[in-house]
Amino acid sequence: MPKNETIAQNEQEIQRTEAHLAGLEHAHPADGADVLEEMSLADQMIVVKGLDLEDAADVLAEMEKHDRAILMRSLSPDLAADILEQMSPDDAADVLDDLDDEHRQRLLKRVESVEAAEIESLMTFDPDTAGGVMNTEISVVDQNLTADQAITLIRRAAEESEIPYYAYIVDGEDKLVGVVSLRNLMLARPRKPLREMLENQQLVTATHDTDKEEVAHILRHYNFLALPIVDFEGRLLGIVTHDDVMDIIHEEASEDMLGMVGAGQDETVDTPWLRSVALRLPWLIVNIANSIVAALVVYHYEGTIAQITVLAVLMPMVANLAGNAGQQSLAVMIRQLAMEGWDPKRAWYAVWRETKIGVVNGLAMSILIFGGVLLLTSKPLLAGVMAVALGLDMIVGNASGAMFPIILKILGRDPAQASSIFVTTVTDTMGFFLFLGLASLFLL
Amino acid sequence: MPKNETIAQNEQEIQRTEAHLAGLEHAHPADGADVLEEMSLADQMIVVKGLDLEDAADVLAEMEKHDRAILMRSLSPDLAADILEQMSPDDAADVLDDLDDEHRQRLLKRVESVEAAEIESLMTFDPDTAGGVMNTEISVVDQNLTADQAITLIRRAAEESEIPYYAYIVDGEDKLVGVVSLRNLMLARPRKPLREMLENQQLVTATHDTDKEEVAHILRHYNFLALPIVDFEGRLLGIVTHDDVMDIIHEEASEDMLGMVGAGQDETVDTPWLRSVALRLPWLIVNIANSIVAALVVYHYEGTIAQITVLAVLMPMVANLAGNAGQQSLAVMIRQLAMEGWDPKRAWYAVWRETKIGVVNGLAMSILIFGGVLLLTSKPLLAGVMAVALGLDMIVGNASGAMFPIILKILGRDPAQASSIFVTTVTDTMGFFLFLGLASLFLL
Repeated sequence: MPKNETIAQNEQEIQRTEAHLAGLEHAHPADGADVLEEMSLADQMIVVKGLDLEDAADVLAEMEKHDRAILMRSLSPDLAADILEQMSPDDAADVLDDLDDEHRQRLLKRVESVEAAEIESLMTFDPDTAGGVMNTEISVVDQNLTADQAITLIRRAAEESEIPYYAYIVDGEDKLVGVVSLRNLMLARPRKPLREMLENQQLVTATHDTDKEEVAHILRHYNFLALPIVDFEGRLLGIVTHDDVMDIIHEEASEDMLGMVGAGQDETVDTPWLRSVALRLPWLIVNIANSIVAALVVYHYEGTIAQITVLAVLMPMVANLAGNAGQQSLAVMIRQLAMEGWDPKRAWYAVWRETKIGVVNGLAMSILIFGGVLLLTSKPLLAGVMAVALGLDMIVGNASGAMFPIILKILGRDPAQASSIFVTTVTDTMGFFLFLGLASLFLL
Repeated sequence: MPKNETIAQNEQEIQRTEAHLAGLEHAHPADGADVLEEMSLADQMIVVKGLDLEDAADVLAEMEKHDRAILMRSLSPDLAADILEQMSPDDAADVLDDLDDEHRQRLLKRVESVEAAEIESLMTFDPDTAGGVMNTEISVVDQNLTADQAITLIRRAAEESEIPYYAYIVDGEDKLVGVVSLRNLMLARPRKPLREMLENQQLVTATHDTDKEEVAHILRHYNFLALPIVDFEGRLLGIVTHDDVMDIIHEEASEDMLGMVGAGQDETVDTPWLRSVALRLPWLIVNIANSIVAALVVYHYEGTIAQITVLAVLMPMVANLAGNAGQQSLAVMIRQLAMEGWDPKRAWYAVWRETKIGVVNGLAMSILIFGGVLLLTSKPLLAGVMAVALGLDMIVGNASGAMFPIILKILGRDPAQASSIFVTTVTDTMGFFLFLGLASLFLL
């Protein structure tokens, strides 16, 4: 390439980079992250090197995991470590969580020792628990201070604090004894001891090992901005904030929906496609095994089908409609467990409720199908067999759709996982059995 | 009943009620609502009459819609109106939304006229838009005031304010010009005019007609506590807060999952079961129509099945497995649209991605099925026909699962609604056509 062109190209690149930088420096970090994600890795590296460390940390904290991990691996370890130091320790822990062990150690070695220790201690918590999602940058105030002294402390710490509107009050042993809002501090008599402000306060907390979905449930129930997380002795460890909870609720819902049909629970359009193949294929193979059960029932009645081939025409309708009814029941049940948590009384009430719905919907569909088949074939016995098989299989569908998540829950499994596949197996098998069995009895 | 027993019973009831009241008065309103929901209607009425109006308003605001509507209809209109007056106008509007027109008018007539006007104006907004979910109790401050004056105003208004940590700054025409946090006000020079604090501030707002899911998307993107809602002239109308958004995210996710299988989008275990029947039956009937399409294909090949009945055994497996693959693709796509909103470029990229996944998973399943059928039947041609039909139908499933939500979106419909039913129709129909068609060509 001639030298002039190279220079021109470099200049163009510098200009372009500067334009990017200008945009990113004034943008909200979440927007900056979106812009960065659209760029090539080479451009991302130029831009991140050009940003000051604090801006780079803010933008990287908002980036999509997968893109961020690639970028972190590509940056020089010194720069990457400097950026990590500027992040809040919980964000830094999340970033490191996505890297392989070798890279993680290389970066942690370069991070200042106090910060590195805090990041490492956060990384010991299970990412699906309160400890794994909590933030540690909070205003902690001793209960023996006055309102006035607390305000001064909060003002000083506000820059660093995740929720700069609350002070967490602890006793001499770091045990959490209460939460006071900035507003209440401002309204209080300046010399009033904090201890007096906590009388009658009902403190809601969760321990670090609480499932993160349970934390989301508590925070949403009380409309809190943040929930304090404590260890088993009641010592304050951190807080889970409203924005963490939004992400948890969002993930949880996607997990249920994707899990139900046997896709990867954290799959998105950005999941590398071969990884999606690997996530889904095992459940499709499980589904082969399940389908074989239904196929064996049909095989058993092969002779009946040979004599009355119209059975093969109508048979898939029974299975399809009852399967649909089962999935309706299943979806309501999975959401129920996600929203309210596990309550055996409610769960069995739900099974009973779904069974009633199955009876009425089954009856309605039976009548429709009876009329339709009679009209088309003029064979009342065939229409009757189809109607009875469909009605019964729909009841089976509704009941098993409601029961399956409960069974998984009792077994300690995720109530959504591949449940659609198993419920469909039940409705297919029962549908073929009822339809072909009744046909063998009454039509041959 | 002897008189003494009646008295004893009344006393017992009063004691019980007092116990309930004691529990409710000290409980968080969200917990109070849970306790109330467990009681009989008669007990609910006694307790609500016993609570002071403000507590009653707080608890009712947290109650489940359906139970609340029944309770509101049962209370005397004067008491119900008094409770409404104590609620924030947006909560009152939500409560009235669930009542029939007659009850609503009867209560509104009894509410103080200024409050009634505000509630009625909120009720004119579509409940699915920003206007329908926004809160109106906010601290609004003129831009010509100083930091010091603003603090005084916020402190005074804090009791009433939904988010007592922000002041919304307006110009002389009530147009929103900026947002300032209590913290920044406290850190500012007391005499500093607010106008100067707004320089370089990038104001993010939404208009009242913005879809509430879009509002949730914006708030989650920026991790805001609240998003200001303005009219088309930029005048401040209210805010949507983090706790509203949590509910929106939660509902949205449930709606997607329930909608996908043709259940009622707001169904829960607490939906009256006959209402669930009414919500689901129409989609089951649509599914009959869809199933007929697949049945017609089988009917067309009845002669082939009569000659080779094993086709009837294997045929449902093709449809079932491809249907499962289609639902996996569908679930990923629906969540994608819910999470990122509509972006044609991303959407078509997703279709391409799913098609590739379909090709690889289809190939893998074809090989497995070929081996399995060959082993069981020793008929290589039959195994080949089954493998090719399954592989092709799985590609159809993945592609149509990704495309269907996009088509609904382009048609201006909800991308989830009954999509599972339609995608299954496609995979059933194509599966039967490919399998029986190829069998007719190669096996007869």
